[in-house]
Amino acid sequence: MITLASDFGTPYPAAMKGVLCRRTAARLIDVAHDFPRQDVRAGAFWLREVLPYFPPATHLVVIDPGVGTDRDALVVRAGEHALVGPDNGVLLPPARRLAGDAALETYVIDERRLEPVEPAGGETGPSATALSGADADGSDARHGGGDGDARHGPASATFHGRDVFAPAAGEVHEAGLDSLGDLEWLAPLEADPVDCHLPEATVEDDRAAGEVLVVDGFGNVITNVPGDVLAGRERIVVNGETVPVGETFAAVPVGERLATVGSHGYVELDVNRGRGDEAFGLEAGDRVVLEGVSE
Amino acid sequence: MITLASDFGTPYPAAMKGVLCRRTAARLIDVAHDFPRQDVRAGAFWLREVLPYFPPATHLVVIDPGVGTDRDALVVRAGEHALVGPDNGVLLPPARRLAGDAALETYVIDERRLEPVEPAGGETGPSATALSGADADGSDARHGGGDGDARHGPASATFHGRDVFAPAAGEVHEAGLDSLGDLEWLAPLEADPVDCHLPEATVEDDRAAGEVLVVDGFGNVITNVPGDVLAGRERIVVNGETVPVGETFAAVPVGERLATVGSHGYVELDVNRGRGDEAFGLEAGDRVVLEGVSE
Amino acid sequence: MITLASDFGTPYPAAMKGVLCRRTAARLIDVAHDFPRQDVRAGAFWLREVLPYFPPATHLVVIDPGVGTDRDALVVRAGEHALVGPDNGVLLPPARRLAGDAALETYVIDERRLEPVEPAGGETGPSATALSGADADGSDARHGGGDGDARHGPASATFHGRDVFAPAAGEVHEAGLDSLGDLEWLAPLEADPVDCHLPEATVEDDRAAGEVLVVDGFGNVITNVPGDVLAGRERIVVNGETVPVGETFAAVPVGERLATVGSHGYVELDVNRGRGDEAFGLEAGDRVVLEGVSE
Repeated sequence: MITLASDFGTPYPAAMKGVLCRRTAARLIDVAHDFPRQDVRAGAFWLREVLPYFPPATHLVVIDPGVGTDRDALVVRAGEHALVGPDNGVLLPPARRLAGDAALETYVIDERRLEPVEPAGGETGPSATALSGADADGSDARHGGGDGDARHGPASATFHGRDVFAPAAGEVHEAGLDSLGDLEWLAPLEADPVDCHLPEATVEDDRAAGEVLVVDGFGNVITNVPGDVLAGRERIVVNGETVPVGETFAAVPVGERLATVGSHGYVELDVNRGRGDEAFGLEAGDRVVLEGVSE
Repeated sequence: MITLASDFGTPYPAAMKGVLCRRTAARLIDVAHDFPRQDVRAGAFWLREVLPYFPPATHLVVIDPGVGTDRDALVVRAGEHALVGPDNGVLLPPARRLAGDAALETYVIDERRLEPVEPAGGETGPSATALSGADADGSDARHGGGDGDARHGPASATFHGRDVFAPAAGEVHEAGLDSLGDLEWLAPLEADPVDCHLPEATVEDDRAAGEVLVVDGFGNVITNVPGDVLAGRERIVVNGETVPVGETFAAVPVGERLATVGSHGYVELDVNRGRGDEAFGLEAGDRVVLEGVSE
Repeated sequence: MITLASDFGTPYPAAMKGVLCRRTAARLIDVAHDFPRQDVRAGAFWLREVLPYFPPATHLVVIDPGVGTDRDALVVRAGEHALVGPDNGVLLPPARRLAGDAALETYVIDERRLEPVEPAGGETGPSATALSGADADGSDARHGGGDGDARHGPASATFHGRDVFAPAAGEVHEAGLDSLGDLEWLAPLEADPVDCHLPEATVEDDRAAGEVLVVDGFGNVITNVPGDVLAGRERIVVNGETVPVGETFAAVPVGERLATVGSHGYVELDVNRGRGDEAFGLEAGDRVVLEGVSE
């Protein structure tokens, strides 16, 4: 099984699926393609929370603000799972969660040794009508369709998801986890991979200080404060304002704010049938202090 | 085959897919995950219109404004189909359509007897830096990662889709429709399930009175008035205003309003390449009266 | 394998998937269902760029502003691929790319000879409460559920994706490319199909004149100017304004404009982590002139 996650929107992920289908008959499952654009931390958080529910799989992850720079392309083995994506930290938090007690194995992709992607009708590229004499015989590099066609290098400068990561994921799946060391286009990463440490909250007595990790599509504000700080409380002070604690949205009237524990185990600041981010005035990265109510 | 429908947006449905893939190799087909949020009636309408086109399948439906309350979790057998979801009415309209002449069989899920969902690396939960002495030895319940971790109960309070409905759907599919009575975590529902009756229009002579069932993503206003009231008419009076009747959007100029019969068989109020809801000033639940034009 | 592309949003594509699953066990892959609505040219462009990455497949394409008019429904064989969709030009640009050197074979669908789609519980249609005497015995055509039910014709006037194209795609896949001529519901198209010629830019010496083909979901402005006009340049004049040329977004500071070569090989006008369409004031169809910088 291969899962796909990106910040591409549509229809770009379909090209990755096409490339994958040419290399493997594996089942393809979309995780999401509307992750916050170029937001490594948000992607790392969501993937850490979602990927552990899958059976052993190859996870293709393309959230890649540095595409086209010299950042490496990686394959990370994490226990019975493999992750394929850019060396920008997005793979590490989910990899650590997936690996459990196993050590991570990290490989760098040599994209020049990867079998290139060959689209159907590949010999025809962008074309234009050439008006000048130099162009008329088709010999000018400016005329599309020749070797200068940007689609025919070893990899497009802007679509490594299609040209590097998808073929790599397909081949990783076909080879199997125990053969990663034998793949000639993979080499052990000598240095440490770039990491993305999701910030941890500090908890002391009756006070927790953390921050907003992400805001989901419904406006729910997901903090990095462990949910057990809410245990046994009916109310809590959030950045100076007292709000009720509820097990579910339905614990408060429609339109009212509450603090609850999300499915990921962290404190969420929500509004029943409304947007928590607007009601609390919070966005990703903002500081959140939770304090017990003085009775 | 298992279909998935929810109002979760992304990436939450991926966790349900992961859970399903751990229990079954069945084909997974997304119906939609952007149903109007917490809108039982809209979900019931769309699923009634869409699910009958599928071959026999298990349909996982999670539109669940009462998640975490004591509403039951159900499995409904409807002819050759099964539906799995909350006891809030959303399952009944599609179930009746799918069942045809067969009687519905309704079971309640005992979530404590369902095999729990075990994410990879499950022993690590939310963590924080503990500053106080009590926390330093890890014995304080406020410190994440212990038994207090919200993710390790029998089911999260806020994500029954992942923790109850998805595993139930996977097991229903594996067991097969004729074995539902043998599953130890299912018991026949003693009372009647909560129902959601989609309102019916009244039709009398030259006048139909109904309401807007839903507005689709393009702004098409879908009423509950059967499409045959438009038969043979060139114009019709909608809430006092005369509009043309057309077989297709293209029957009127771009930007013009029309009444037509949607693919579901009901009268739709649309605008050719525009939004019917804005042009007619109508939203879900609004009253609609259609009258013949006095020639 | 069958790919699906449409401008339907949700949940309409699910009905097509249901119909397909009743006729074939083929793998279904979504290309996208949020193509610009009723925009034949945008669909033709994207499908030409994306479909060639798939292995041999049947491609179901429903971007169909003329649904319900007398436009034909087509099956086009393009090399090892088949495309199924309306005769409005959307199929031709991707078909030519997929076919490579092979000639296209074009067939017209006789929808009356196609095995009709039969939803579960199909005998129940839209219903209403009849108040007048004539309606009380159920004999009035205005009362839903009878033969007048709009869902029970050979095809809905507004949902040919579900009622014509999906069943046709399923049967094309099952029959195989070499049997298209034997299918009784297909006949060779006598006339030329409607075509959609994506406009070509003109390139002369130091100047390229073209237009915006599409704007993608991130606001990237995709032109029809072949990317090789940017080769070796550090800056270029776009409609009179000089902007830097970069291999990737990251070549310029966040929020800055640049000209780059997209993954499709054409010049794109983008903003690093911003919207190119807003920054350049351009939308689909607008004229774009690129000129070399006078040093």
